[in-house]
Amino acid sequence: MDVWSYTLEGYNAEDTVINGNRFLIGNGYMGYRGTMDEWGRAELAAVNLAGLYDQNGDKWREPVNAPNGLFAKLFLDGKPVSLGETPALRHSQTVRFRDGLHCRDTDFGAVRIQSVRFASMAEPHLLASRLTLTFQKSGRAELLCGVVTELWDINGPHLFDFAYRRGPVLLAEARTGELSVPVAAAQATVCDFPRGEETEENENGVFRRIRFDAEPGTAYTVTLLSAVCTGLDGPEPGERAVFLCETARAEGFESLLAAHRAKWETLWQNSCVELRGCDEAARALNASLYHLHSIAPRHAGSLSIPARGLSGQTYKGAVFWDSEMFLFPVFAHTEPELAKSLLRYRIDTLPGALKKAAEYGFRGAFYPWESQEGGAEGCTDYNVTDVFTHRPIRTYFRDRQIHISGDVAYAFWRYYEITGDTSLFLEGGAEVILQCARFYLSRAHSRVDTDKVELLDVIGPDEYHERVNNNAFTNMMAAHCLSRVPALTEVLAGAAPGYMDGLIEKLDYQDDLRLLRGVAPKLCPVFAEGEVVEQFDGYFALEDCTPDTVRSRLLDEREYWGTNHGVAAHTQVIKQADVIAMMALFPSLFSAGTVERNWRFYEPRTEHGSSLSSCMYALTACRFGRSDLAWEHFLKTASIDLEGGGKHWAGEIYIGGTHPAANGGAWMIAVLGFAGLSLQAGELTLTPRLPPQIRSLRFTAAGKQITVTHDGWTAG
Amino acid sequence: MDVWSYTLEGYNAEDTVINGNRFLIGNGYMGYRGTMDEWGRAELAAVNLAGLYDQNGDKWREPVNAPNGLFAKLFLDGKPVSLGETPALRHSQTVRFRDGLHCRDTDFGAVRIQSVRFASMAEPHLLASRLTLTFQKSGRAELLCGVVTELWDINGPHLFDFAYRRGPVLLAEARTGELSVPVAAAQATVCDFPRGEETEENENGVFRRIRFDAEPGTAYTVTLLSAVCTGLDGPEPGERAVFLCETARAEGFESLLAAHRAKWETLWQNSCVELRGCDEAARALNASLYHLHSIAPRHAGSLSIPARGLSGQTYKGAVFWDSEMFLFPVFAHTEPELAKSLLRYRIDTLPGALKKAAEYGFRGAFYPWESQEGGAEGCTDYNVTDVFTHRPIRTYFRDRQIHISGDVAYAFWRYYEITGDTSLFLEGGAEVILQCARFYLSRAHSRVDTDKVELLDVIGPDEYHERVNNNAFTNMMAAHCLSRVPALTEVLAGAAPGYMDGLIEKLDYQDDLRLLRGVAPKLCPVFAEGEVVEQFDGYFALEDCTPDTVRSRLLDEREYWGTNHGVAAHTQVIKQADVIAMMALFPSLFSAGTVERNWRFYEPRTEHGSSLSSCMYALTACRFGRSDLAWEHFLKTASIDLEGGGKHWAGEIYIGGTHPAANGGAWMIAVLGFAGLSLQAGELTLTPRLPPQIRSLRFTAAGKQITVTHDGWTAG
Repeated sequence: MDVWSYTLEGYNAEDTVINGNRFLIGNGYMGYRGTMDEWGRAELAAVNLAGLYDQNGDKWREPVNAPNGLFAKLFLDGKPVSLGETPALRHSQTVRFRDGLHCRDTDFGAVRIQSVRFASMAEPHLLASRLTLTFQKSGRAELLCGVVTELWDINGPHLFDFAYRRGPVLLAEARTGELSVPVAAAQATVCDFPRGEETEENENGVFRRIRFDAEPGTAYTVTLLSAVCTGLDGPEPGERAVFLCETARAEGFESLLAAHRAKWETLWQNSCVELRGCDEAARALNASLYHLHSIAPRHAGSLSIPARGLSGQTYKGAVFWDSEMFLFPVFAHTEPELAKSLLRYRIDTLPGALKKAAEYGFRGAFYPWESQEGGAEGCTDYNVTDVFTHRPIRTYFRDRQIHISGDVAYAFWRYYEITGDTSLFLEGGAEVILQCARFYLSRAHSRVDTDKVELLDVIGPDEYHERVNNNAFTNMMAAHCLSRVPALTEVLAGAAPGYMDGLIEKLDYQDDLRLLRGVAPKLCPVFAEGEVVEQFDGYFALEDCTPDTVRSRLLDEREYWGTNHGVAAHTQVIKQADVIAMMALFPSLFSAGTVERNWRFYEPRTEHGSSLSSCMYALTACRFGRSDLAWEHFLKTASIDLEGGGKHWAGEIYIGGTHPAANGGAWMIAVLGFAGLSLQAGELTLTPRLPPQIRSLRFTAAGKQITVTHDGWTAG
Repeated sequence: MDVWSYTLEGYNAEDTVINGNRFLIGNGYMGYRGTMDEWGRAELAAVNLAGLYDQNGDKWREPVNAPNGLFAKLFLDGKPVSLGETPALRHSQTVRFRDGLHCRDTDFGAVRIQSVRFASMAEPHLLASRLTLTFQKSGRAELLCGVVTELWDINGPHLFDFAYRRGPVLLAEARTGELSVPVAAAQATVCDFPRGEETEENENGVFRRIRFDAEPGTAYTVTLLSAVCTGLDGPEPGERAVFLCETARAEGFESLLAAHRAKWETLWQNSCVELRGCDEAARALNASLYHLHSIAPRHAGSLSIPARGLSGQTYKGAVFWDSEMFLFPVFAHTEPELAKSLLRYRIDTLPGALKKAAEYGFRGAFYPWESQEGGAEGCTDYNVTDVFTHRPIRTYFRDRQIHISGDVAYAFWRYYEITGDTSLFLEGGAEVILQCARFYLSRAHSRVDTDKVELLDVIGPDEYHERVNNNAFTNMMAAHCLSRVPALTEVLAGAAPGYMDGLIEKLDYQDDLRLLRGVAPKLCPVFAEGEVVEQFDGYFALEDCTPDTVRSRLLDEREYWGTNHGVAAHTQVIKQADVIAMMALFPSLFSAGTVERNWRFYEPRTEHGSSLSSCMYALTACRFGRSDLAWEHFLKTASIDLEGGGKHWAGEIYIGGTHPAANGGAWMIAVLGFAGLSLQAGELTLTPRLPPQIRSLRFTAAGKQITVTHDGWTAG
């Protein structure tokens, strides 16, 4: 088995959507779905842009898809040749993890179409594709290339006022509806054979017809170069896109590809985890890191990663707590500059978090549950559609999932712990932590007649139980956040004397400072050694049953399990790790025995209905020395995008796409779990707990080449 | 129009259920539904008992229906004669309000059946009926009389181990399933014509066949006397029932009827409100008081009234806040001993309220939302069934409708205010108030960073909005309850020196006493003159629309408007008076202008989906001098049981029956609203605000005959 690529033989129409995710390529600036060169909106072809959002009417705001400048469709003797319409003798599709290439090879009998495509890791605005057409017999061939502006949108359209330019480079320009941000996509073609060419434009885009007489046995090669630029990148994106196409054409496909590959190679040097003993697992882990690299926003100093990466508009292209909990760790350990970019996004979007808190009558920073550009809250009050009535269901993710602010603060603190670097605190991270703590102070209640501090009416990580009181995870994150304020003061006293004093003065934080010292210990859940932690007040009184029992009560497989009406809501069945997630995040607070007791209680009650769940269970299983229990969770997490697994529906809402959090989780299980890596201010320790299926793990950490086997570990 | 009776001509099968309520007779001990003599389970015939409950399996606990001892079915030449099966030439059904008689008169052609029935107001265990049969031609007649044990139950069966006794008096005895309480019903018959008789028993009961040869033109009269006794009344209920039948037979129908009528006459002397100017309204008001008298528990010193009276098992036969808010006032003003009985029920059920609070982790008294015998909570967590999935919906009436304790305390205080009598406080009322106040102390929260005290996660009177924060009505009731503790100390300092000190000692209440003085003012909502009070935190931000708009969104007319999925839940449409109910209960706190402003805001947003709503709007409209606006609400409230109105379904649950709260509300609008009666320690004042439709009102108050006209009022 080639652990560095994934190939699917044959064509199955039903897999079109999943393959679009499975074979995604990207470079952080944009993602290009794994569709055929000749496909369009119907097959969900899309060039998904990072960080550019648009709202059409009162529909959900979502990321914008750019016009598709890699479109190429062959007509043979006037008839279209297209996978799905034209019968194929053989077909295969491949994604290559090491160098980020998408390859297709389809033999239609009369003609064989091969293409190699990449989203340049060296030039974020560039897409390139090389098509090779080989004919069985002579005929009249016409290749329709161009920039397609008939786009797949979930809640669109988002682009208006299209203008086209024809010439050596084709250009389509438009503006977003909400904020009039210009978006441009250009295309240049390179052919090395005699042909006729003409250009045209219509309501579907701007095109070039390349006509030639096909000779049997000859390979006709056409290179497509496309550049995408938007108003967010700078002025005159249209001119820039044309210029980039011209430059790329001058440079040539091979040179562009070489630069792209070189960049990929440097990425792998730091991040590659060589897993020996199970090829399936090795490939899945490579695929996971491939996907992470494909969507990591290296072109920006302050941008985070949407929950479905750049695979489309699902989850509104928004940044969730996934970023801090599941994506941040891998980058913090392998590419700290990128980790900083993710966290800078939270610094830059602090105003949005302050605004959201104020909207709900609270002080401090309440980060968006679904963060969009500038920290706008993308989460609506109606996030699921009821399958029985087709009505939107009022969900409480937006207003009650308050652990998000604690998650953000936690990541800032972890960055410091892992790297020993305090610079992010001074860039604004300290202010983020103080404002998150202030939010919890204003959100917390105490009972009038007792001393206890409570966080009421919240949702923990397990979204099937809405509006609960004193969710252990949430209280813990909040208590940790509060306690970070004095910790920060201590750390910065040496690193940046006076900084905290100035900040406290600037934020008028003196009263909060006094208050939080008293509140933090009263808010923190009390844990008894060896006891099962109750997920929230009253959880133990709920019906004790299994996910299978709950599943058997479904009347419609797409019904949502949560909300007040859901089949899981009034049972002990949970969507994902919650208490166990807390234990994964605070390893020093819980003995191995306590973790195991809780694991064995909660695991059978967990549906793992989120791709964020298995990772936490696997990590904690390693903690109590049972990496064998972690193995299935690891495989499931690492291979989710290869398998096309995960949930595709929440009620009637399509939520499919790639799963970056699971990708990050796969790395966490392998390196933090199995190898037991711990970095403290750049100093590493390892506590290997390899499962029997793994012979060895090799990876780089703290600049050292680490090898972990069942006999121990070496660093060189 | 006869304002003292209601007659329905003709027969319509669809009205069977409504007529059972409309033509109900009762005497507080039991209610007998307005069904035909020959009807049974299929037609919802029932003898509904007050205060005796039973639970079958895990179905809802509900009041027990006794065997029906007034059953009588005629067979003519072997063929049954029964309304609905046998075509009738003429049919009428009448209920007489002044003397509590039910009359039917059905001409089947071959035979005319007339009957007069009453539930003796003089002897609570006694039912009596006189049948008159007049034949068109001669024939072989057989009257099957007896005690029917095939009962209509919603969540039954409740009676087991039936034993029958035959003889001059028929007896059916059984035991309830849950607590083995014996229940007995006996029947004696009196005939004055030659006949053959034989008795029999079968699975449907114990019967007497009275055979005779019918002569045309002759009126055959049969008197049925039935007595119902249960183990709650004393030992050997069977013997007692037989004895009561024998005594009644010895006394004779006419004498029993005279005693019954005399008792009714005394009831009317204190309570009658003679309304001149609109016969329709006068009759509806008489009907309302008739229904109240029919269900008032005069046989017991400590019993309250279920939300659907004695019309059946709907609402589980439970006592709601209706008792304190809507039934208590009429009795407190007209028959204080009865008002005391209602409140003593709360004293006696205090242990149940303490237990319920403890179950939820609170101190003090949390009264049941649906109180059954001994103060057991009859309300379940799943009170409504979803019409789309047929699944039970988790509702929060039981655990979050915490205003109930404040409502109870409010009524105790009102009893003292109206009568000047402190004896109920000393009987246990003071303890009730202290324990209710203690409950609110333990239920209240304060924000960690501010001084505000909050009641979070509650349901106010408007049940369409569940789990809200700081419902103004609830906070006000709780604040009032807290402030009653010092007020009580002051009142009892003179009336019963040392009593409060002893109570505070006994209840270990010193800390609570200190606490509540600080909490009460911080909990009480702040009202600004002329401003609309927000029903709860965030109410104003909900969708602003009308009940009609919400109704137009229904997919099924029976769907429940509330809970998280309901059509009203996320709009400003409310089920019933909420802020306006608060203003009705605390008249001195709000200026007429403020009340009007709030009225005009909330009224168009109110569905009046509860029979408790219109009364509050009518009362407050009188308060700001617009009794014309109150008129429609008055008519609607007063005539609800005549019209057979009100909601019959909540989701898939049948909730029909009579509406005692509306009956009490009708009296409140007429006397407290239109006449503007105010009693303070027995001293009356009046502020008449007669609507144009009413010429005069006459009633008794504080022992005086009051006449109110548009020119003023006189007392004589």
